[in-house]
Amino acid sequence: MKRTHPGALREILATNLRRIRAEKELSQETLADLCKIDRTYISGIERGLRNLSIDNLERLATALRVEPWQLIRRRDGDR
Amino acid sequence: MKRTHPGALREILATNLRRIRAEKELSQETLADLCKIDRTYISGIERGLRNLSIDNLERLATALRVEPWQLIRRRDGDR
Repeated sequence: MKRTHPGALREILATNLRRIRAEKELSQETLADLCKIDRTYISGIERGLRNLSIDNLERLATALRVEPWQLIRRRDGDR
Repeated sequence: MKRTHPGALREILATNLRRIRAEKELSQETLADLCKIDRTYISGIERGLRNLSIDNLERLATALRVEPWQLIRRRDGDR
């Protein structure tokens, strides 16, 4: 099993959030409204700049209608 | 699919951390040393009192040799 290096999880989350948000055809603005998280904060998550808490991870997941763990799971084929 | 209510993710994490730590036969003290997180903070996570960040979730997972998403995934049979 590949070991992650410190901070790798932020990149996985960033990649997954961008992909799932695109699949749901939601803009950052719309997602921000849905989960009551600032749009600039969502932008920061998608660039791996934010050390999100699990409470906010849960709010994002609820707004996207996915399970929270799906946002931080590395997918086969991802680097 | 069952919708989580706010804060449910902390309980899932708490349950998983207690279970995985027991499976690995690690005390809170030993885990604390391994991941450089204070023992009382780990105790707080296991009681659902802490809003852990994903950077610290990653450190916990690395110390436990599991993938971070495994710490927040609800298991069949859990409430």
